[in-house]
Amino acid sequence: MIKIGLEDLDDIALGATFLGTGGGGDPYIATLMTRRAIAEHGPVTMLDLNEVADDALVFACGNMGAPTVAIEKIMAAEQPPSAVLALEKHLGRPADLLMAFEAGGSNSMMPIYNAAMLGKPMVDADGMGRAFPEMQMVTFSVYGASGSPFALASEHGETVILNIEDDKRAEYIGRGIVIRMGARAAKASYPMDGNTAKRVAIPGTTSLCQAIGANLRQSRAQNREPFAALIQMLSGTHYGHAEVLFTGKVTDLSRETRDGWAIGWVMIADQDGETLEIEFQNEFLAARQGHRLRAIVPDLICILDTEMAQPITTERLRYGQRVTVMAVSAPPIMRTDEALAVFGPAGFGMDEEFVPVEDLS
Amino acid sequence: MIKIGLEDLDDIALGATFLGTGGGGDPYIATLMTRRAIAEHGPVTMLDLNEVADDALVFACGNMGAPTVAIEKIMAAEQPPSAVLALEKHLGRPADLLMAFEAGGSNSMMPIYNAAMLGKPMVDADGMGRAFPEMQMVTFSVYGASGSPFALASEHGETVILNIEDDKRAEYIGRGIVIRMGARAAKASYPMDGNTAKRVAIPGTTSLCQAIGANLRQSRAQNREPFAALIQMLSGTHYGHAEVLFTGKVTDLSRETRDGWAIGWVMIADQDGETLEIEFQNEFLAARQGHRLRAIVPDLICILDTEMAQPITTERLRYGQRVTVMAVSAPPIMRTDEALAVFGPAGFGMDEEFVPVEDLS
Repeated sequence: MIKIGLEDLDDIALGATFLGTGGGGDPYIATLMTRRAIAEHGPVTMLDLNEVADDALVFACGNMGAPTVAIEKIMAAEQPPSAVLALEKHLGRPADLLMAFEAGGSNSMMPIYNAAMLGKPMVDADGMGRAFPEMQMVTFSVYGASGSPFALASEHGETVILNIEDDKRAEYIGRGIVIRMGARAAKASYPMDGNTAKRVAIPGTTSLCQAIGANLRQSRAQNREPFAALIQMLSGTHYGHAEVLFTGKVTDLSRETRDGWAIGWVMIADQDGETLEIEFQNEFLAARQGHRLRAIVPDLICILDTEMAQPITTERLRYGQRVTVMAVSAPPIMRTDEALAVFGPAGFGMDEEFVPVEDLS
Repeated sequence: MIKIGLEDLDDIALGATFLGTGGGGDPYIATLMTRRAIAEHGPVTMLDLNEVADDALVFACGNMGAPTVAIEKIMAAEQPPSAVLALEKHLGRPADLLMAFEAGGSNSMMPIYNAAMLGKPMVDADGMGRAFPEMQMVTFSVYGASGSPFALASEHGETVILNIEDDKRAEYIGRGIVIRMGARAAKASYPMDGNTAKRVAIPGTTSLCQAIGANLRQSRAQNREPFAALIQMLSGTHYGHAEVLFTGKVTDLSRETRDGWAIGWVMIADQDGETLEIEFQNEFLAARQGHRLRAIVPDLICILDTEMAQPITTERLRYGQRVTVMAVSAPPIMRTDEALAVFGPAGFGMDEEFVPVEDLS
């Protein structure tokens, strides 16, 4: 059990942007909101996954929508808690603990924010171990926890409770609601007991965000080469392998908001005329150097600016940026056959088989 | 208090198609479902609105979607009750009575169907007194009852509960869900007590359907001119004025399914070269003879085939049909300033002022 205070937020946000693999939304605004919530209500208690009581009621919370919209349309302060409260009211029972469903991107902050606002503890775990564009792309669904009932809340205090057995259908119908809520809604979902959480969640991902953020911050402070230090740090986690895939300049970019997602690709070229093309649907999905696959989902592809090692989200990509592309192996719980069926290449309509990034290097 | 048995359904369906003013969906399939439900579970008890206990819990139920889809995609037998049950579960209290929100079209049958399936009585009243394309176009909303919480159910047993304060926003977000449920969902909505129902509902509309249907049936059986008999019958109700606007042949028709609605217009010409153009959004909204307005929403515009006086829904309009167009004045509760603001011409984006059909004739 640890406390998350004001001094921890910047590291968590920085690490979450890295784990966001281009998506999950820039945590900047969510961090500002969380800073205010902790300043007002005090630090948040965070339990290790193995400290959770078997019969505790856990909600996975965060936002649902297009990251391109999230930086234009700010959440209402009461919006994220109102999703949690709506689900509690529907179930007739308060949640004991909050958890991220997505440790990557702005959704890293939402359980901290909600925990501060509602005076609840949270769990150091999530369902994606990174960011993914669709609701059902979580280990929770893969290992048999149901997304339903779940609540969506708009900035107008409007709430919707969904009971949809199939989590991919829940994503489809939920996305329709989110679009009509202006492409941004707060969500409280996957109500589960502690026993289930210990079986289906990826442990330690909020503290991993913090460790990644602290590592990058220290590199800046000490003026050391950041990528080697980060690779070294990640090798000691359940993620394991990390490497630099490519270094170059953004030379082309296609990005559109379609069906509530940010969809497109970015081309990066180096001085030798080599190019790396990365396609994305909210998150970076696959990196190809010519015809050679360099990394593919669910392994993590991260674009950082070369000078400051600042992770760059898809909506902040710009022509001319000098970037370093890193790849990180996903933890084993995300690479089983069941997991790959949901958020491996097939989950994104790609024909290719998943190949671990360490086998491609 | 009366009983609705198998022998009543055809008359109710026929009258409901008339009150549907082209929309609300063809009641054919809903009548077949209701016939089976009554055959299995027995007749349905229907109370007059003034017989309802002040503290009784009343749900307004029906379907939401595009009538063009309703005749292609049949409801699942459990789908309409599952919306009622989901709302009961959410409220933690069973409904005492069911009511139509829309007496016109297929939604006339849904409270009867649900009442038979769930063993509940129903109320002889609704919120539209006809059919309208949008959820908030009900006297319930006009006179201060809230649509929320309300439940939508798909044919897969999926349910969604919405809590949206503004009923027009509820329509917008609910429609988004209905579209993703395949443009057809069952709905249970406007939970209200009996006291409220007596204030906000239009009384006697289910029995009015039956009376209209019986009148048309008797005209056929007696081989009498049907339109004069119907006009005579309606003059004794709170609707009052009715008239024949036009008689001719369908010469042009434009119809598309857009945003979940059937939208378009139909042109009818007579032998003298006069034409009547009627525009529709699920229901017939306005009838114009050249530049002269003949009738406008919320007054009822009904197209019937000239020979059999069978009301024709928008999705069954065909080139060459010989039709008689009738207009009926809406009851006073639907013509107040508050009511016209919601489902008068302005509610459909039309610039024209409402003029009572009896003043236009």
